Amino acid sequence: MKLFLEPDSVALIGASGKLMRPGHHLFQNLQICFGDKFYPVNPRADRIDGKLCYKSILEVPEKVDVAVVFIPARQVPRALEECAKKQIRRVIIESAGFSETGPEGRALQERCLSLAREAGMRLWGPNCMGAINVHQQKVLSFMNPLLWRGRFVPGSVSLVVQSGMLSAGFLTHMLTRTPFGLSKVCSVGNKADVDEVDLLEYFLGDRETGVIAMYVESMKRGRRFFDLTRSTEKPVVVLKGGRSNFGAQAALSHTAAMAQDDRVLDAAFRQARVIRVHGMSELLDVARSLALSGLPRQAEARVAVLTFSGGGGVVTSDDIADLDIGLASLEPRTLSALRTVFPDWMEPANPVDLYPAFEKNGHTETFRKTLEAVMEDPGVDAVYAHLFIPPIDLPMFDYDHMARMTRTHRKPIVVWLLGDAARTPAITRELESRGIPVAEDMGRGARMLAAVARGR
Amino acid sequence: MKLFLEPDSVALIGASGKLMRPGHHLFQNLQICFGDKFYPVNPRADRIDGKLCYKSILEVPEKVDVAVVFIPARQVPRALEECAKKQIRRVIIESAGFSETGPEGRALQERCLSLAREAGMRLWGPNCMGAINVHQQKVLSFMNPLLWRGRFVPGSVSLVVQSGMLSAGFLTHMLTRTPFGLSKVCSVGNKADVDEVDLLEYFLGDRETGVIAMYVESMKRGRRFFDLTRSTEKPVVVLKGGRSNFGAQAALSHTAAMAQDDRVLDAAFRQARVIRVHGMSELLDVARSLALSGLPRQAEARVAVLTFSGGGGVVTSDDIADLDIGLASLEPRTLSALRTVFPDWMEPANPVDLYPAFEKNGHTETFRKTLEAVMEDPGVDAVYAHLFIPPIDLPMFDYDHMARMTRTHRKPIVVWLLGDAARTPAITRELESRGIPVAEDMGRGARMLAAVARGR
Repeated sequence: MKLFLEPDSVALIGASGKLMRPGHHLFQNLQICFGDKFYPVNPRADRIDGKLCYKSILEVPEKVDVAVVFIPARQVPRALEECAKKQIRRVIIESAGFSETGPEGRALQERCLSLAREAGMRLWGPNCMGAINVHQQKVLSFMNPLLWRGRFVPGSVSLVVQSGMLSAGFLTHMLTRTPFGLSKVCSVGNKADVDEVDLLEYFLGDRETGVIAMYVESMKRGRRFFDLTRSTEKPVVVLKGGRSNFGAQAALSHTAAMAQDDRVLDAAFRQARVIRVHGMSELLDVARSLALSGLPRQAEARVAVLTFSGGGGVVTSDDIADLDIGLASLEPRTLSALRTVFPDWMEPANPVDLYPAFEKNGHTETFRKTLEAVMEDPGVDAVYAHLFIPPIDLPMFDYDHMARMTRTHRKPIVVWLLGDAARTPAITRELESRGIPVAEDMGRGARMLAAVARGR
Repeated sequence: MKLFLEPDSVALIGASGKLMRPGHHLFQNLQICFGDKFYPVNPRADRIDGKLCYKSILEVPEKVDVAVVFIPARQVPRALEECAKKQIRRVIIESAGFSETGPEGRALQERCLSLAREAGMRLWGPNCMGAINVHQQKVLSFMNPLLWRGRFVPGSVSLVVQSGMLSAGFLTHMLTRTPFGLSKVCSVGNKADVDEVDLLEYFLGDRETGVIAMYVESMKRGRRFFDLTRSTEKPVVVLKGGRSNFGAQAALSHTAAMAQDDRVLDAAFRQARVIRVHGMSELLDVARSLALSGLPRQAEARVAVLTFSGGGGVVTSDDIADLDIGLASLEPRTLSALRTVFPDWMEPANPVDLYPAFEKNGHTETFRKTLEAVMEDPGVDAVYAHLFIPPIDLPMFDYDHMARMTRTHRKPIVVWLLGDAARTPAITRELESRGIPVAEDMGRGARMLAAVARGR
């Protein structure tokens, strides 16, 4: 897999000069990322954007680590034969029109696979968006360069997806909202050969990968996959598409994925310490939180909830119960400490409703003392803080103090930011750059906390 | 209830001049909203912000429709006696320190209730944020005026909540993100007297209220409540806090709410056509969507999903299955129409993956033709469209055409906007001002569609 993700030289079979088309985006990306070591192939163009094109892959004079193929499906076998002749060992087929389209396409895909096996070649795809290495800024994908240039932040989350959206549109979505540090992004499509198991194996040995997140529509090599997840401390987060009858039907026409018994899979996820999620935002939320927090999973997750609203505390308590983690019972010492900031008429409890204390002592001091008290409580494993952001810039929270607390006590803090939309992104960056994950939504924050604290 | 929500004159017992304190926010709000017909009471201040204060409510020379009480809990009975003497029939107690704090507070609350009953007075609260009438801009709440001035948009959603956050913080959150048209916002706290049933009765007759959304921690008058919801076509959306053991415990110390058997409640919700939700964002999402869409609930909700991603279609299909609505089977005529925009190698199906067709025909034309085809299909009751917003301003979707389609066919469209954060708010406004609800998240959009199309 290393050669797919860290190639030095790349050819593109199907380079296009047509603006705003995927074949041209591929051309642009490879030119940006590989320069002189990029070899475009197009039998009908001498040059694209001034760059010399080869009539055939066989004409390329240099060694090629990876060939990216983006031509009509029925022409792909011929291209593979030529790649074999040129002794190229890694080919990414990004074209669609294979087993996802029915029996004819399935036969075509089988033929490609046989050709590859005969030639000792590994095949990635077809029907996919290819590979991205964020640390090395190598983009072997037809993602529009406008979407990624200047936006990718190197980090420790590696993604494996059977969906173009997750590897392009969703990344744009996330990258324009939160700093999200990525390592590799792998869109594997129909998985004729390279699959999530190959990539998982690679990521477990990859020093730039700390958290693995996957969207899969089928898991054909479940036993090996679960052996690997059991063997590692790196968190593996999985969204399985096609859980339901409707979803399974849709997955069949998307990537030719076959339905699997979801209850069996679900039990396997639990046993093999895979963190299972049920939505695309949840997949990225949970992966990002695990990468930011970086604390080991704990045996228990008894949560202290700091809120400014009794109602928020109640609904979060229900969420915590649903997630099968716990609400901490605060020790007498902690309650005494809280009484020093609470008004007389109010007895502290968990969830800790800070609103009356904010009114009495101001935000900063109240929040600092409360956070210290619950962090020092041995019965508290993690903190979920609801923070309200008013539309005016008041000094309210000491971010450095929060970061010190989470590091000193090795207990995760997850924050839900409620309030003014315009001020939220800056405060999100302040917190996340200090290892404190921030949720956009109260329920999503509880989900993130369960993953970070308990690894589930 | 009308007098509580549409008063002409208001007194404030507990007016404060201390900046940034709730007693001063109340003073500011009532002064802004009622001017000369606002009578502040404070025995220790002659004037606040230049305005004359009365030593006692008994000194106020004019008729008072509503007295707002915001003084320490143990002084409240005496204030009620004076209100009775002054023949005030509506009192909102916003102070905390009553039954939510234990036996002593419970006794105090009982005493207030007896005093009110003897005097023929209705009591709102205690432990609440009071009432807001958005159409008349009457804010009887200690919400900071910075949070609401110039932000409230009159609309048809009325809220009843047992939580300060939902009536202040969450409103700031929503109002800075999406145009959300509100009618009345009622924070009822401990519900010593006025409760969600009183308000529901009022809202069913209120011409400015089209959708009723509630956050409740207890439902003591369930029979009457469900009789009312069965009797109306106005959608009623409910978030019940305290479903779980953790949540019920938290609700007890928040608003003294007693635990109720959630399975029994859940069955009652279904039978009485209440739309049940499980989170605060979901409550506001669903209420806003129902108000925007304004179409009657249907017997079935067979959904056509328009996406640019096979993976998005698969996960949405799973969400649709979870929500117990359906995925439409497209008619042969519809499939033929789709074939005219699809590339040859791709057979159209539902979810409709438009990406390859976008590449072939451009966004605007592809989307228009597809939307027309599925809208005309008698087997389609509603459309869920995933729209991708790139970071550059390309003409992609014809909003007016979408609005015409939903109106002509009387079939709801819900949109999930994926992509560039900076461009999302403007496009959200374009769509929502045309009656098309926009989701921030793929899963939340499916939830909104189920509510809009099926009323569940």
